[in-house]
Amino acid sequence: MRLPNHIGIIPDGNRRWAVGQGLHKQDGYDRGISPGLELYRACRDLGIREMSFYGFTADNAKRPIAQRRAFTSACVKAVEVLSREDAALLVLGNAGSASFPPELLPYTTRHVFGDGRMNINFLVNYSLEWDLGMKKGAIGPALRTAGLPRVDLIIRWGGRRRLSGFLPIQSAYADFYVVDDYWPDFRTEHLMDALRWYAKQDVTLGG
Amino acid sequence: MRLPNHIGIIPDGNRRWAVGQGLHKQDGYDRGISPGLELYRACRDLGIREMSFYGFTADNAKRPIAQRRAFTSACVKAVEVLSREDAALLVLGNAGSASFPPELLPYTTRHVFGDGRMNINFLVNYSLEWDLGMKKGAIGPALRTAGLPRVDLIIRWGGRRRLSGFLPIQSAYADFYVVDDYWPDFRTEHLMDALRWYAKQDVTLGG
Repeated sequence: MRLPNHIGIIPDGNRRWAVGQGLHKQDGYDRGISPGLELYRACRDLGIREMSFYGFTADNAKRPIAQRRAFTSACVKAVEVLSREDAALLVLGNAGSASFPPELLPYTTRHVFGDGRMNINFLVNYSLEWDLGMKKGAIGPALRTAGLPRVDLIIRWGGRRRLSGFLPIQSAYADFYVVDDYWPDFRTEHLMDALRWYAKQDVTLGG
Repeated sequence: MRLPNHIGIIPDGNRRWAVGQGLHKQDGYDRGISPGLELYRACRDLGIREMSFYGFTADNAKRPIAQRRAFTSACVKAVEVLSREDAALLVLGNAGSASFPPELLPYTTRHVFGDGRMNINFLVNYSLEWDLGMKKGAIGPALRTAGLPRVDLIIRWGGRRRLSGFLPIQSAYADFYVVDDYWPDFRTEHLMDALRWYAKQDVTLGG
């Protein structure tokens, strides 16, 4: 089986899970640590070379303090758990902000644990602005396509589930709808299905 | 119904459609023009304010000459067709390259046609390097996360079909797999389903 070299993991749904269990929203995050370990081990045993985990973003850090404390603590624990496995571990994100947990500062350079066979990248207080070394809001003016607003919905015909380089900055928060039919077989119904689906999605815009 | 302000359109599958009809691959592109007009009109009537169409990329321009001629000609025709509608039309992409059709040069500044009620952005010879004003391969070194290779597969738990800002540069070509279960309900089966799906996807890497 053709395996991916590098897998990105977006471990979403912790708060909805907690609410479904009759718990407070913030109680979901701690329940995400052991799945992460299980997933890492399954990937390691398959021979996957690199994984990147979405911890939390600079935008997430604007959430209520109870949630912020809970997801920050879960990320710290997750990194500590992974540091007891075979991994070359690196934490990436804005470490120069109060939202960055000091416990994770030592991990902002890559360290090898065990036999270090898998690269694990853990995003903590990440943002594209930080990644590009720009101030918040500074990406726009630097782009040649700066005049284009954020893309809200992407509809892709032909069944493939990928962006293929389509406006990556403007599309970073877009909802993504795939039509399996090929483009020449377009029917207005595809658009209407996509719009009905979009209308049911929540609006978080990264928050 | 909550409508998106800005819709991105990836009109893929033209070549596979043509092959399915017993035609040459390049014969599919011309059959994508009339669907585009139909889609534009449906969106206009719904009151959508802005659409961005993926014409072709700088990477696509490396394909065999017969395909290149066919998709370039189809993009030129599509822009001409849209210029007879109500649209504020702009073509975005590297116009300083031989792959950019000279017929579209006048559209590289936004022009109003009809009552100009919808912004239409048409990407022609587009690439992120061009967008960021960098040379090919120069994005990497400029990123704080430059050490991370291209993401091949993204798995997202919790049912949402969006990147939420996850490594937008590295993920621009990633295959995107969504698990509807919430993250705390992770099962190894989710990973295996994602990997089996990934193994069946073709590898184009933007080409």
